[in-house]
Amino acid sequence: MLNFSRQNFYPIKKKIKSNNLKNIIKDNIIDQRVNLSFEICDISSMDTYRDNSILFLDKFIDIKQYDSKNIILITNNKKIFDNKMIKNIIFVKDLNNSYNDIINYIFSHDDSLDYLDKFDLINNSYISKDAKVHKTSKIFSNCVIGKGVEIGKNCIIKNNVVIKNALIKDNVVISDNSSIGTTGFGFDFKKRGSLYLNPQIGIVIIDQNVHIGSSCTIDRGKIDLTYIGKNSMIDNIVHIAHNVKIGKNACIAAQTGIAGSVIIGDDVTIGGQSGLAGHIKIGNNVVIAGRSGVTKNISDNSIVAGFPAIDIKEWKKRIIREKKNGHY
Amino acid sequence: MLNFSRQNFYPIKKKIKSNNLKNIIKDNIIDQRVNLSFEICDISSMDTYRDNSILFLDKFIDIKQYDSKNIILITNNKKIFDNKMIKNIIFVKDLNNSYNDIINYIFSHDDSLDYLDKFDLINNSYISKDAKVHKTSKIFSNCVIGKGVEIGKNCIIKNNVVIKNALIKDNVVISDNSSIGTTGFGFDFKKRGSLYLNPQIGIVIIDQNVHIGSSCTIDRGKIDLTYIGKNSMIDNIVHIAHNVKIGKNACIAAQTGIAGSVIIGDDVTIGGQSGLAGHIKIGNNVVIAGRSGVTKNISDNSIVAGFPAIDIKEWKKRIIREKKNGHY
Amino acid sequence: MLNFSRQNFYPIKKKIKSNNLKNIIKDNIIDQRVNLSFEICDISSMDTYRDNSILFLDKFIDIKQYDSKNIILITNNKKIFDNKMIKNIIFVKDLNNSYNDIINYIFSHDDSLDYLDKFDLINNSYISKDAKVHKTSKIFSNCVIGKGVEIGKNCIIKNNVVIKNALIKDNVVISDNSSIGTTGFGFDFKKRGSLYLNPQIGIVIIDQNVHIGSSCTIDRGKIDLTYIGKNSMIDNIVHIAHNVKIGKNACIAAQTGIAGSVIIGDDVTIGGQSGLAGHIKIGNNVVIAGRSGVTKNISDNSIVAGFPAIDIKEWKKRIIREKKNGHY
Repeated sequence: MLNFSRQNFYPIKKKIKSNNLKNIIKDNIIDQRVNLSFEICDISSMDTYRDNSILFLDKFIDIKQYDSKNIILITNNKKIFDNKMIKNIIFVKDLNNSYNDIINYIFSHDDSLDYLDKFDLINNSYISKDAKVHKTSKIFSNCVIGKGVEIGKNCIIKNNVVIKNALIKDNVVISDNSSIGTTGFGFDFKKRGSLYLNPQIGIVIIDQNVHIGSSCTIDRGKIDLTYIGKNSMIDNIVHIAHNVKIGKNACIAAQTGIAGSVIIGDDVTIGGQSGLAGHIKIGNNVVIAGRSGVTKNISDNSIVAGFPAIDIKEWKKRIIREKKNGHY
Repeated sequence: MLNFSRQNFYPIKKKIKSNNLKNIIKDNIIDQRVNLSFEICDISSMDTYRDNSILFLDKFIDIKQYDSKNIILITNNKKIFDNKMIKNIIFVKDLNNSYNDIINYIFSHDDSLDYLDKFDLINNSYISKDAKVHKTSKIFSNCVIGKGVEIGKNCIIKNNVVIKNALIKDNVVISDNSSIGTTGFGFDFKKRGSLYLNPQIGIVIIDQNVHIGSSCTIDRGKIDLTYIGKNSMIDNIVHIAHNVKIGKNACIAAQTGIAGSVIIGDDVTIGGQSGLAGHIKIGNNVVIAGRSGVTKNISDNSIVAGFPAIDIKEWKKRIIREKKNGHY
Repeated sequence: MLNFSRQNFYPIKKKIKSNNLKNIIKDNIIDQRVNLSFEICDISSMDTYRDNSILFLDKFIDIKQYDSKNIILITNNKKIFDNKMIKNIIFVKDLNNSYNDIINYIFSHDDSLDYLDKFDLINNSYISKDAKVHKTSKIFSNCVIGKGVEIGKNCIIKNNVVIKNALIKDNVVISDNSSIGTTGFGFDFKKRGSLYLNPQIGIVIIDQNVHIGSSCTIDRGKIDLTYIGKNSMIDNIVHIAHNVKIGKNACIAAQTGIAGSVIIGDDVTIGGQSGLAGHIKIGNNVVIAGRSGVTKNISDNSIVAGFPAIDIKEWKKRIIREKKNGHY
């Protein structure tokens, strides 16, 4: 259900075989062992192995997991390269650069000038000829619905909404001026600027019955998904970064920001103007008070507050202590 | 002056009489006493009693206040129901569900699929056939002005602005990509998702000479108003939630968020990135420093800072104390 | 390179000579010495002196610097007026009002009703007849590109983007729903409301290879520039106020706000949801941790955190101290 066909969103502009990848990144190659020749159609991540794909890897993983598939590995990690069990592998100096050069060579995306999408003006909105909108759904004015996008039954997409690189399930409401499927903030800190942006070629999936407010931004996954679970309620001006996964029944109040790759469980409530640092995990049934800055994993059923966020009882005690110290 | 005609924004899609409401919510009814039969045309709140309306009530109020009007009361509070002075009342299990079922049955609104609005493309913007824009006002490109909206004299509505469910008085400026009259974040915490959203059928009134920045979101009232007073200045990316009332001459700097039902007096200044918790009252002539998190009522002429916000002098002392503790 | 022709953006609607300015602000004048008669074409600031211009001044500066140019000075500072070396000067009661009255008399801008711009609908976006977009650049749907705007080579302007009063250099990417060149939050605190807004007649320059996320707002300079340096990366929902200058290679994460006139050096990294108070200076190679509130100048190579932001080591010590105090 959470699968998607990358080529619906990111067409392959140039075909290349695994044993010819070396031509794209030759200045970057230290060594290689490529025995298999297959046409590259997709990209894998540590979470999802896909057939006929490339996997960029800096950390060691259990190679058995993807052994049955046509996958060529590109790594900057000598230990990985030295594992002779791996048969198709290129050892590079700069993994980030290799990612950029190869992905930009193969795939077209909306941060590259070659990206093409054709639209029909339908009821005041631009709908891609390669989008599918269920006839029971309603799209208001000045929207843009990009290629590959599928919108399920009984959805309401309000005015001036941009939806690209996303699958929208049934009964979803997205309010005015929101942007879904936008580019994640991914680049090498040492090489900045639009020319070094990491191509972001994943998508967003918004599951059934989600309500999204106005002026929200939900970035697409880099390789896989950004995911918003069923029945979640998202208020206005909320930012959800790339690769974030949110469980079902979330309630996220206005102006909250969730940094990249955060994983949030089910039934989580987040007060307004909170921030969640990247790559942390929030358990099920957690409550995060308004204006919290969460910097660490939070276990199931916790209630936290403050910055850095701590148990709300401790936080309240601290407020009282501070008050006493000040005699006010 | 702060009245509005609900049906201009939220047309009645099905007529129903007070003594037939029971049919809509029959699974929810515990008991009832309905003697009067009148056609439901409106909805009342604890602040405003309207003739031929329903009033949903969980707390006790002085019933004399609305006794002279055709109002049918729906409550989940046995004490209220047990008051035999009240002649038209339905006692329900789940007040929130009853609200949703009845309001969605009677009224059309922009979170329901039956909502209809017809537009003309005038000077690059979509203007509802049921909106009134004064001829001296200017609307830039890619705007959407929805049904019932009235825009007074000499207003400037910039590009990609969405105005729905709102009355805009004279000399108002609204800058690019802002959304006015959007849906408030109202739902039962125990039943989440777009299917359980509380219908929001109030409006926004923006009074004379208000200047609103870019990418702001101002949610409409749930039943009554969200109101911005005369001469107020609102910066970019400010979120103002449902039912907020702001006095005249407010100055609200960028990225501030004001949660639902906050009441703000006249001549209030709020620094950037501040947050005000729901249902609090801010007096006249208050200054809230930047990045404050205000959690309690603030009395007239106060200056506050910090989170939770305290008197700014105390806050400054605390900063010095913290510095001393750290010897830096 | 950072020059611009004001009249491309803000046409002169009425010509006036320096010795006739008194007619516009007569109720405001205390005294004057105007010997030179030249036509007012521009406005100067303390940073940039322009020929045939007005300079509004409340603080003393070295007048030799602009002596060679046709500049008429308007001041509310008696000391400045009493300097008899200055030959063309008007001494006024209210400098702010004089600024408003004179600038609104001479220049047209997008907060005044007389502002005119004519558009062609090109590939689903409205492009001003007086804008220049390089043929290699791509503009997606529902954008508005205003008069005077120049967009360099190989830029990508995504959907529903508004660009006014701005020069965009080569290879810039601006993502969906962002607003560039919007009105700065400038007005007299004692006289609020749209009628007293200080005309903002500067522009934004976005230099080469900058990547800007979704739903950002970048206000134009009041008189001169708001400037974003080469290779800078700006995430979603970032607010950059008027007159801000950002060096090259900045990385600014989501929901950060930078108040007016902040100067930021090169190679600066700012974590998400940070705020920078107005008129401060951030050195080169500074790192500002997420959720920081920076209230003072920060010197080169510093790493700061917290609110008010302090050295990150001190901040971490404080967190540990607080933890000990609470025994949690």
